[in-house]
Amino acid sequence: MQGLSCGTSRIVGCRFSVYPMTDNFVDVIKGALEEVDTSKVWQYTDDVSTCIRGRSEHVFDVAKAIFIHAAKTGVHVVFNGTFSIGCPGDSEGDTYMSQDDRRMNEEKSQAEKVTAASQFALYPMNNPDYMQIIADQVQVAEKHGTFTKGVHYASRLDGDANDVFRTLEEAFTNTSKTSDRSHVTMTVAISANSPSKKDM
Amino acid sequence: MQGLSCGTSRIVGCRFSVYPMTDNFVDVIKGALEEVDTSKVWQYTDDVSTCIRGRSEHVFDVAKAIFIHAAKTGVHVVFNGTFSIGCPGDSEGDTYMSQDDRRMNEEKSQAEKVTAASQFALYPMNNPDYMQIIADQVQVAEKHGTFTKGVHYASRLDGDANDVFRTLEEAFTNTSKTSDRSHVTMTVAISANSPSKKDM
Ligand SMILES: [Ca+2]
Repeated sequence: MQGLSCGTSRIVGCRFSVYPMTDNFVDVIKGALEEVDTSKVWQYTDDVSTCIRGRSEHVFDVAKAIFIHAAKTGVHVVFNGTFSIGCPGDSEGDTYMSQDDRRMNEEKSQAEKVTAASQFALYPMNNPDYMQIIADQVQVAEKHGTFTKGVHYASRLDGDANDVFRTLEEAFTNTSKTSDRSHVTMTVAISANSPSKKDM
Repeated sequence: MQGLSCGTSRIVGCRFSVYPMTDNFVDVIKGALEEVDTSKVWQYTDDVSTCIRGRSEHVFDVAKAIFIHAAKTGVHVVFNGTFSIGCPGDSEGDTYMSQDDRRMNEEKSQAEKVTAASQFALYPMNNPDYMQIIADQVQVAEKHGTFTKGVHYASRLDGDANDVFRTLEEAFTNTSKTSDRSHVTMTVAISANSPSKKDM
């Protein structure tokens, strides 16, 4: 898949948190971060969430890697965040847009087998055709084989974490291209190792 | 604050998860749910999230109560979810719209003192004035004394959990009224008992 930001200066951001449901949650997060190369994204972490910004492919590469390396511990882990592009007035982190498109974490992420359950929602802003745009991306997920079903306010994806993230990235990228300088956000909850029975 | 749905049939939904960062996360969630009266909302829980639907005031009442009763355990707990109104094609749970407006959990929630840090974002769909609408609601938060600052893609609120939820509900309700049959979503992450230093 071609990166969204090739040849443009459209910065992508993701504000997210990783929630490991364990007493050792700090260790799980720190351990995951140690395995992830974040050199190609702007990053800021506060007590509620982490924000990463840069070229689309690196934002997705880093988000996926953090989730996968936290989830491979076997702990019940959830990644919950919002991807965003085109938010008016955005500039901080622009220097990261000059990075090349080689994904620093892809090889290591692909080497892990983590089963993920995800619910996501697309929000194309200021666009009267937004419901059709969303429906089109559900079809993309169906083609990927990751789409499970629609639920209230979201669509459910299941499968290998690498496949689920591939669908999320493509749905977001496609939506971002539906209009010139479009503002699009996508909320995502991705869970691994839940003790609850999967609702597929 | 007057409920959003008084005299209308505009159902509000919230898809959310509560993440207690502890080995006993199941007990913390079950314990909180036992203290919450959910009789006035439609409810469905799967392995990724819970969806509640009904009159606006009851959806916010239940969401707040679940967070507060989980957070009062002292465990690091995060509520992460999306509130929604006006999503085209929505009908399941409509029977709950005939409930009266008495909040079943308000008294018990107000009795707890939980300090919360929150990041939220409003998404008024299909509305060219959406950036101004969002800015107006930041002013509401400033009046409430809960607004801390803007961050990338979100606004930060701090304070007592009851006050933070009051701001969230009012921002959502106000936005929902900005146009006829408007479709609005609001993402919220609310954290309590984080070991990280507050970024205020
Ligand atoms: Ca399927």
